[in-house]
Amino acid sequence: MAGKKLGIAVIGLGGAVGTTMVAGIELLKKNKISKTGLPLADVKADLIDYEEIVFSGWDLFGADLAQAAKTHGVLSYEQLAEVEDFLKILKPLPAIADSNFLEIEGDNIIKANSHTEKIAQIRSDLRSFKKNCDSVVVINLASTEKLIDENKEIFKSLEKFERAIEENSEEISPAMLYAYASIAEKIPYANFTPSVAVEIPALIEFAEKNSVPIAGKDGKTGQTFIKTVLAPALRARNLKVVGWYSTNILGNRDGFVLSNENSLASKIKTKSSVLNDILGYEVEDHIVDIRYYRPRGDNKEAWDSVDFLGFLEQQMQIKINFLCKDSILAAPLAIEIARCLELAQRSGEKGIQEQLSVFFKSPMSKGNPEHAFHRQEQMLMAWLEKHQANTNFGQIKLMFD
Amino acid sequence: MAGKKLGIAVIGLGGAVGTTMVAGIELLKKNKISKTGLPLADVKADLIDYEEIVFSGWDLFGADLAQAAKTHGVLSYEQLAEVEDFLKILKPLPAIADSNFLEIEGDNIIKANSHTEKIAQIRSDLRSFKKNCDSVVVINLASTEKLIDENKEIFKSLEKFERAIEENSEEISPAMLYAYASIAEKIPYANFTPSVAVEIPALIEFAEKNSVPIAGKDGKTGQTFIKTVLAPALRARNLKVVGWYSTNILGNRDGFVLSNENSLASKIKTKSSVLNDILGYEVEDHIVDIRYYRPRGDNKEAWDSVDFLGFLEQQMQIKINFLCKDSILAAPLAIEIARCLELAQRSGEKGIQEQLSVFFKSPMSKGNPEHAFHRQEQMLMAWLEKHQANTNFGQIKLMFD
Amino acid sequence: MAGKKLGIAVIGLGGAVGTTMVAGIELLKKNKISKTGLPLADVKADLIDYEEIVFSGWDLFGADLAQAAKTHGVLSYEQLAEVEDFLKILKPLPAIADSNFLEIEGDNIIKANSHTEKIAQIRSDLRSFKKNCDSVVVINLASTEKLIDENKEIFKSLEKFERAIEENSEEISPAMLYAYASIAEKIPYANFTPSVAVEIPALIEFAEKNSVPIAGKDGKTGQTFIKTVLAPALRARNLKVVGWYSTNILGNRDGFVLSNENSLASKIKTKSSVLNDILGYEVEDHIVDIRYYRPRGDNKEAWDSVDFLGFLEQQMQIKINFLCKDSILAAPLAIEIARCLELAQRSGEKGIQEQLSVFFKSPMSKGNPEHAFHRQEQMLMAWLEKHQANTNFGQIKLMFD
Amino acid sequence: MAGKKLGIAVIGLGGAVGTTMVAGIELLKKNKISKTGLPLADVKADLIDYEEIVFSGWDLFGADLAQAAKTHGVLSYEQLAEVEDFLKILKPLPAIADSNFLEIEGDNIIKANSHTEKIAQIRSDLRSFKKNCDSVVVINLASTEKLIDENKEIFKSLEKFERAIEENSEEISPAMLYAYASIAEKIPYANFTPSVAVEIPALIEFAEKNSVPIAGKDGKTGQTFIKTVLAPALRARNLKVVGWYSTNILGNRDGFVLSNENSLASKIKTKSSVLNDILGYEVEDHIVDIRYYRPRGDNKEAWDSVDFLGFLEQQMQIKINFLCKDSILAAPLAIEIARCLELAQRSGEKGIQEQLSVFFKSPMSKGNPEHAFHRQEQMLMAWLEKHQANTNFGQIKLMFD
Repeated sequence: MAGKKLGIAVIGLGGAVGTTMVAGIELLKKNKISKTGLPLADVKADLIDYEEIVFSGWDLFGADLAQAAKTHGVLSYEQLAEVEDFLKILKPLPAIADSNFLEIEGDNIIKANSHTEKIAQIRSDLRSFKKNCDSVVVINLASTEKLIDENKEIFKSLEKFERAIEENSEEISPAMLYAYASIAEKIPYANFTPSVAVEIPALIEFAEKNSVPIAGKDGKTGQTFIKTVLAPALRARNLKVVGWYSTNILGNRDGFVLSNENSLASKIKTKSSVLNDILGYEVEDHIVDIRYYRPRGDNKEAWDSVDFLGFLEQQMQIKINFLCKDSILAAPLAIEIARCLELAQRSGEKGIQEQLSVFFKSPMSKGNPEHAFHRQEQMLMAWLEKHQANTNFGQIKLMFD
Repeated sequence: MAGKKLGIAVIGLGGAVGTTMVAGIELLKKNKISKTGLPLADVKADLIDYEEIVFSGWDLFGADLAQAAKTHGVLSYEQLAEVEDFLKILKPLPAIADSNFLEIEGDNIIKANSHTEKIAQIRSDLRSFKKNCDSVVVINLASTEKLIDENKEIFKSLEKFERAIEENSEEISPAMLYAYASIAEKIPYANFTPSVAVEIPALIEFAEKNSVPIAGKDGKTGQTFIKTVLAPALRARNLKVVGWYSTNILGNRDGFVLSNENSLASKIKTKSSVLNDILGYEVEDHIVDIRYYRPRGDNKEAWDSVDFLGFLEQQMQIKINFLCKDSILAAPLAIEIARCLELAQRSGEKGIQEQLSVFFKSPMSKGNPEHAFHRQEQMLMAWLEKHQANTNFGQIKLMFD
Repeated sequence: MAGKKLGIAVIGLGGAVGTTMVAGIELLKKNKISKTGLPLADVKADLIDYEEIVFSGWDLFGADLAQAAKTHGVLSYEQLAEVEDFLKILKPLPAIADSNFLEIEGDNIIKANSHTEKIAQIRSDLRSFKKNCDSVVVINLASTEKLIDENKEIFKSLEKFERAIEENSEEISPAMLYAYASIAEKIPYANFTPSVAVEIPALIEFAEKNSVPIAGKDGKTGQTFIKTVLAPALRARNLKVVGWYSTNILGNRDGFVLSNENSLASKIKTKSSVLNDILGYEVEDHIVDIRYYRPRGDNKEAWDSVDFLGFLEQQMQIKINFLCKDSILAAPLAIEIARCLELAQRSGEKGIQEQLSVFFKSPMSKGNPEHAFHRQEQMLMAWLEKHQANTNFGQIKLMFD
Repeated sequence: MAGKKLGIAVIGLGGAVGTTMVAGIELLKKNKISKTGLPLADVKADLIDYEEIVFSGWDLFGADLAQAAKTHGVLSYEQLAEVEDFLKILKPLPAIADSNFLEIEGDNIIKANSHTEKIAQIRSDLRSFKKNCDSVVVINLASTEKLIDENKEIFKSLEKFERAIEENSEEISPAMLYAYASIAEKIPYANFTPSVAVEIPALIEFAEKNSVPIAGKDGKTGQTFIKTVLAPALRARNLKVVGWYSTNILGNRDGFVLSNENSLASKIKTKSSVLNDILGYEVEDHIVDIRYYRPRGDNKEAWDSVDFLGFLEQQMQIKINFLCKDSILAAPLAIEIARCLELAQRSGEKGIQEQLSVFFKSPMSKGNPEHAFHRQEQMLMAWLEKHQANTNFGQIKLMFD
């Protein structure tokens, strides 16, 4: 799918993942890196080319992306040198701040007196961006907000939610306002964070009504990725998991926010049901720890210790030590999600895009979510195969191939 | 499938895996253990019940299975106490010895002057065993034989092979003689070891001709199991594996035999092509070490260190430390293979049983073998589903259910 | 030092460590195990022989030690069988309960209306025990009590403390009452737990006054042992530790108590200053996690990830995974502490026994404590060497050797 | 000790360790790095200042050190940029090549027809270098030579050795020729490699005769460092090591040479006796593997799995995963060795410098070598303390302090 420009509007553009996305696409355009790490690079489907992607977005910090990239330390010295001039030009738009949900104090904040005004600003930003693109997708990469009670009445229907917006309800988070604004603009929205955003019934209803594809939540990058790969195999061998201890240490801004207990709760919540669901029974000793630990910077480290029983009920152990780079794993997933949402919209699909489950720790779904990695993968592949030829663009492309 | 007795004739009955199989089935019959670790315990297919399984077999050591179990130290004290009297009665039949292939010097050896005599003895053993069972399956659990050149002319057709048997060719291994005898008796045969046995064209031809289902080779228990689970997921994420270092330490008889360089070569050969096949490219730095290390006894330990590139070609690492129990993992697989081969034979299937790939490191197949664990699993599940009703016994069973 | 009976009175006798001590000494007497794991087994000093040790003690649970040993699962089946009859006879005396300090609800509790009565009972128990021994030592192995404020006025002098006892102060813990009673009986006392006991100035004063040797606190068994071995070496190489993440999972009664936040605080406190002290600078990212995780039972597991800088300020990592058995490590240390305290008392030493630092996470000392393992070891060795001949018993022994 | 220029002549100057030494000292001079990683940085002894060190040396490859540094990839991008101009000027002198001992084919080779000529060239190189320095030390950092039989008659006395030189004996390695030349020039010599060099009786005799201090062999950087730290602690706790499995993966030139079996043998030999010596008994299952594995480059990785028995003869495990940087660990040790040898020579010491044991895997010693890290450390500290004031320079320094 060449020649159609896809704009990705990133909430948290100046963060480690956001800047890595932007730098990565630029390095690809300059032919400085291969497509390694981009899961759908070799897939024959009618997705927009990576080289056609452009970026915009918001951030609580106004620093240009070159400055941001230096802070994050994800790019190698050579990679940074290659794209520094390009990144310098990109400055995040002012973002929605709300200290009830996030304690980070930024300097690049939308001045607005009400939820309605904030939404209006985001919609206006999106309309401007859209002028330069064939299509736009919004993706939330902002720091994790504090855990809220998703079962509040105001989240249960679009009507109630819109009333609560008008009343400036303190229960409505920035993540929700962005999601509302995107859907209002008929722009697909993906929640890559553990924050509660587009997952509330009110916004799902809105997405259906406005025919907008949505997806979420919480990108499946490191430990949970491995967990959803290994657990189905243990089940296939009928090995009984009696305990699974998972600990994570990470030192980036994301980690710092998680050192706040309420944000941590959001994060851990999206990690925890996965295992029982895959195994089909409750693992009573399933512990997930996450610790802010600066020496590692953006290099996250996970350690899992799994205890399970085999034949004759004898105990065995698997330990997995994953030395990963958070943004290096997350950025390509966010890019693929955006490409898939664009394809979904172009194909007339709307509401929850369950086939994107493979990219999320806590996938949105109409029924029970699928957590097993290989079945999620197959779901996506089937969807992509279906879209090889049955869109208009696809047909044209095939004719000239 | 209750009430039909399945006899499993084990080559290497007194080994750690063999005795664990026998003890495990006995403990199941006595209701002392659950079916944990038996992969097909919950599958609804027309397989023989575990409780209907009985055992016979050969071993170079004549010790009864109670004595053998004590040596191996796999059973817990309580488990041994529970089945000791039962195991005491079971003594392995004399086995085929050939120091060209295995240096172990046992005391329980078939006295025979020729290959033909050895085959005759095995066939006679099998016929006796068959009298007490509704069906019999042979499974090879013997220590790994030295690596041979599989491309020798005598292995290429049944005719040439039979002539070589008559000529007492030194190229023909004990494992092959057992396989030949089994097929001659129309008894399904599975090769759970890395030795070259039923995989040669001559014996595949024989199996086809005699309508005997066969399967192999080398049980996928520990490290390779994990490797074939993890590698497909790395590929799905387009993470580029640049190196995979695998080392194993094990201290049982199997490990001791592997301290012989030629046997080790057999073992490593079956481990090595797996990775490239799954990933679709050659991993140049794929190293597999196996070391005999006594302190661990039957408790095998594997350590894998995987280096791979992600987005922006940045390097990450996964390390996996698997503290497993060799026989605890192997015994239930061997049991399931036997049950599946019985079902295959009952259903009129013959030759290579590719759907059993999930149980083997180096699966026999008509075309390219499937190595990815989850696809192997699905292949087996599809086969089992098909056999829920389309065998005679199955139909009867369904009628009365 | 043969022929002199040493009685060890254990607070928490029925716990995993207590029963392991008793069983271990009995197995030694029966010549069923070697002296492996007993640090001072080969030391030529005038210590009481292991075979001369006898036990008594208190526990909140009244079960005999055979029953207790079965619950703890530390002894092998064979070891238990060997000593079961002996353990059956041993029943813990009723213990001091105080739900302000420990939430465990036992059934074997001293009935008393005041601190004074409780002390009287413990003293009476000790006097009875002493009748059958040449000497007695008390060792605290009870579950960790909640963290208290050690700086309270009542702990600062013996006078104030005794007044607080009379007033039944709620600040006084069971651990302190045992310590007070021991010292009152001129019996050496060691605190093997992280609870605050003999370390308060009041009790140190009492020990000096009554000429009683004391030692503590918190046995250095697993992770801290390794930490105090490795850290001095990193310092010797001038490698700069920038972060040390330590996590522990354990599933025994001790672990359960630690799942209570206040007890956990006690435990972590004794672990944390060690590192800075050895390295000579503050490690800002030093994190210690302890998690109750049942599948491991008494088998504790620690995982340490150390980040440090080398030449050119380049970062390296060491990761240590320790699969240890808590009681197997702790029991012999407790035995050696008792033997050393007996020797100290016999030699006329009193108050803090700093030379026992090698056995403790948070060693009592007159000045700055020594934490580096090898220097602690040398301190103990020097003391033991001094006591090869300069006690009366020692001289006699040498004369007749 | 300021103001006295120390010249270090490096055999293998262009290797990863050699270039890291040179770059590191230059970065120190420019105040771009701290003294982290230099073990004796804070020691108050009369050692030459780091800033007074200059370099020369030989290498089979003639590339300047800037080029070499790029190949090795040890320096960070910024560090390389800082010293690139300086490194460019430094070109290794032609080295002694001998394919009997090392298969590397370089382009920068001394043209000589005999051992005598080669020695003459090295001596001439050393004399030139000496003109610009107050003192010179030679350190061998070249790739590991093939294992030779150290017990050959020609190595047993200086006389026999000199005769063999004249006869161009094929048994005499390049490492020995360099050592001979150094000693002939009365220049201290250290062997940082596992090759056999100055350790033969002939050269020890020569060093004594010429009053030259010597030291070796094989720098104790990674796994053996940890081993000699941990093993004494296990012994102190009387924990019985029943097995120690050590494996290493490394991808630099050093690793490549070790993929040659005979060189590997040299390396493993220097690693193996250490453990038994520290523990005081033979560990039957002590296995050391070293594998050339390119993805890691200069970043060596070691994995140790230690099995040991504790009280009641119960088994426990420690696993250590060391992600280290070979040259980052080795370079500062080589620098300290040179500084100490200079001090030794200045103080009139000669022959084997046993106090440098802490820097070597296989320390040269007059009696039994000391392997335990903390005792080696103490030996060195005692020696340095003695040299705070008793050399001439030291006295002067103290006077003006």
